[in-house]
Amino acid sequence: MKNEVYLDNSATTRAYPEVADIVKQVMLEDYGNPSSMHMKGVDAEQYVKQAGQILATSLKCKPENILFTSGGTESDNLALIGTARAMARRGRHIITTQIEHPAVLETCEYLSKEGFEITYLPVDGNGIVDLDTLEKSLRPDTILVSVMHVNNEIGAVEPIEEIGTIIRRVSPDAFFHVDAVQGYGKIRLIPKKCNIDLMSVSGHKFHGPKGVGFLYMSDRARLRPIIFGGGQQKGMRSGTENVPGIAGLALAADLTMSSLDEDVSRLKTLKAYAAERLSGIDGVTLNGFNDGESAPHILSISIRDVRAEVMLHALEDKGVYVSSGSACASNKPAISATLKAIGLDRSLLDSTIRISMSHFTTEEEIRYACDCFGELIPGLRRYIRK
Amino acid sequence: MKNEVYLDNSATTRAYPEVADIVKQVMLEDYGNPSSMHMKGVDAEQYVKQAGQILATSLKCKPENILFTSGGTESDNLALIGTARAMARRGRHIITTQIEHPAVLETCEYLSKEGFEITYLPVDGNGIVDLDTLEKSLRPDTILVSVMHVNNEIGAVEPIEEIGTIIRRVSPDAFFHVDAVQGYGKIRLIPKKCNIDLMSVSGHKFHGPKGVGFLYMSDRARLRPIIFGGGQQKGMRSGTENVPGIAGLALAADLTMSSLDEDVSRLKTLKAYAAERLSGIDGVTLNGFNDGESAPHILSISIRDVRAEVMLHALEDKGVYVSSGSACASNKPAISATLKAIGLDRSLLDSTIRISMSHFTTEEEIRYACDCFGELIPGLRRYIRK
Repeated sequence: MKNEVYLDNSATTRAYPEVADIVKQVMLEDYGNPSSMHMKGVDAEQYVKQAGQILATSLKCKPENILFTSGGTESDNLALIGTARAMARRGRHIITTQIEHPAVLETCEYLSKEGFEITYLPVDGNGIVDLDTLEKSLRPDTILVSVMHVNNEIGAVEPIEEIGTIIRRVSPDAFFHVDAVQGYGKIRLIPKKCNIDLMSVSGHKFHGPKGVGFLYMSDRARLRPIIFGGGQQKGMRSGTENVPGIAGLALAADLTMSSLDEDVSRLKTLKAYAAERLSGIDGVTLNGFNDGESAPHILSISIRDVRAEVMLHALEDKGVYVSSGSACASNKPAISATLKAIGLDRSLLDSTIRISMSHFTTEEEIRYACDCFGELIPGLRRYIRK
Repeated sequence: MKNEVYLDNSATTRAYPEVADIVKQVMLEDYGNPSSMHMKGVDAEQYVKQAGQILATSLKCKPENILFTSGGTESDNLALIGTARAMARRGRHIITTQIEHPAVLETCEYLSKEGFEITYLPVDGNGIVDLDTLEKSLRPDTILVSVMHVNNEIGAVEPIEEIGTIIRRVSPDAFFHVDAVQGYGKIRLIPKKCNIDLMSVSGHKFHGPKGVGFLYMSDRARLRPIIFGGGQQKGMRSGTENVPGIAGLALAADLTMSSLDEDVSRLKTLKAYAAERLSGIDGVTLNGFNDGESAPHILSISIRDVRAEVMLHALEDKGVYVSSGSACASNKPAISATLKAIGLDRSLLDSTIRISMSHFTTEEEIRYACDCFGELIPGLRRYIRK
């Protein structure tokens, strides 16, 4: 058994070796600035163009619909703030859900201080948005609906296509943003088919580089930039393009898409296996497992009478790395909005562990991790103060 | 003679090999998310902490004064918009110069639409800000003064220390932002000594990675974030930290600072040599050369009756890469604000070439480039339409 079993892939992933290679190569050889008029600039621009084509192919859209950013958080901010600023004259109502990533929730919080009204849709016990409530929440002044594709904590998969249909039917002028940071590369989602206007993707969640991502932007979407300067990317995102990162992002997308079906079927099997073994342990319950309809790579479990942090460090001692709640929330010991929204028993909020897998996760690793849970839990529960 | 003589280092630079190596290593081995609580996260966080220490040492400040961003443009935006939002109740007057980078000028343009009043200071024929005008422009409602350290087009070095002294004396509550993107790693600037509150730096201008930079922020500076989310970097810049980029940025800074004195003295000699040879060519004039007081790595020349674009491509055929104006301005054929501000003859605005050197520039390369200018210019001038 190898020492490290990394099961925190929803926090971040190990880069594909090919991706690290291309990043290094571009840094050393094709290091031009795409804005430069000489060959060195033209060569660099080619990487950016080619990346746009690769990513567009993955979403069945045009390269012009791809806007490079510094990552998922910036993509979400640009989608929300950019739409709000562009559309403020038409309306100031935005709809989102109670279980979004902080990059959406905190941005909505900012916008509410700027005079926008935010409706937060509730979810059911599996984390699925209620479509009736969505339909009733749409108003003539609704300018944007933002719903995540895959929840980062419990793996709930939202009914994006149905949501898109409802928005287009009831409020055809409202734009639809999808935070696809956890879904891209795991569950295919074609923006046009789902009436999506804006979609956020982050490179480091699928073995690409950190510090780079993109925002899909439909032809009809209207944004104001949130970062100003040299006018790169048609003025929508100024700043010298991160060419090595963009090249790495596109290669990671290409590799991910080419093994997607295979990976997903393998991950589903691993997840089902882990779910069965772990739920067999006394005191363990699954969150948002939803009859196998949830994302193939994320499994959330609660362990009665065991604090998540204690469990996490006990596993760490055995070389198994998992997360307590969402690691994206920067060490903050805040209580998870998602777990509260699905109605998890209060006593379990602080006893919830996320296992998240990737392309690199093996059956052997999952078996070993399940063994560790099985060995550790009885001992950890024994010492609980009653 | 090697094929490529890259003299567009103010647009971007080739990464140090060591920097590319560390980026690759972190992507493949130390790929954790600094927000994760297990060892993989702690290891990643160590890179970020260590990078903060290295950069703080280079500025004689504390690691807490370093805020990582996606680059110079974001740093400028955060400094300006962040201060404007934090200080709007105290005042709405901002002072900058006519020769700033678009990352400052366009951001000021945005802020002026948001109700802020912007004063643009004029410069003299060498691009130096007039201190009397600065002093007269300061008002009780001035919240921010933003002046670049080294101008990106002509290499003018602004009197930052004097400016800082004036601001602190006349308007002690106003903050002082310096865009040091072209100066960092070339001319030492200690924020505290110069009363600087905010200072923007970009990695790829000194052989670091693209897509990463930082903002120095003094203890007294007050900012609101412009990107919201998981609350990383004390809430000032949300989003998973670009750990490989941050590690590369710090290493590039370390390498640059360790050879700074040597490099600068070598570059000064090369610049003086090029200035002498090029100004000896009929029709060539130097811009902002300023008795050798300008930046050691940037030389701007105007060539009467030769269009910059024609010159650039003729040099390109000989393997010499230079810039016409500032490449950061994304292919836009707009006329340079800097060249207009220094009062360059209208007929020369479109005939101006920037030569910019780096750590990697050799004497042989500069000799060869000067030879090329000397050979090409008479031929190009012969064909001009009169």
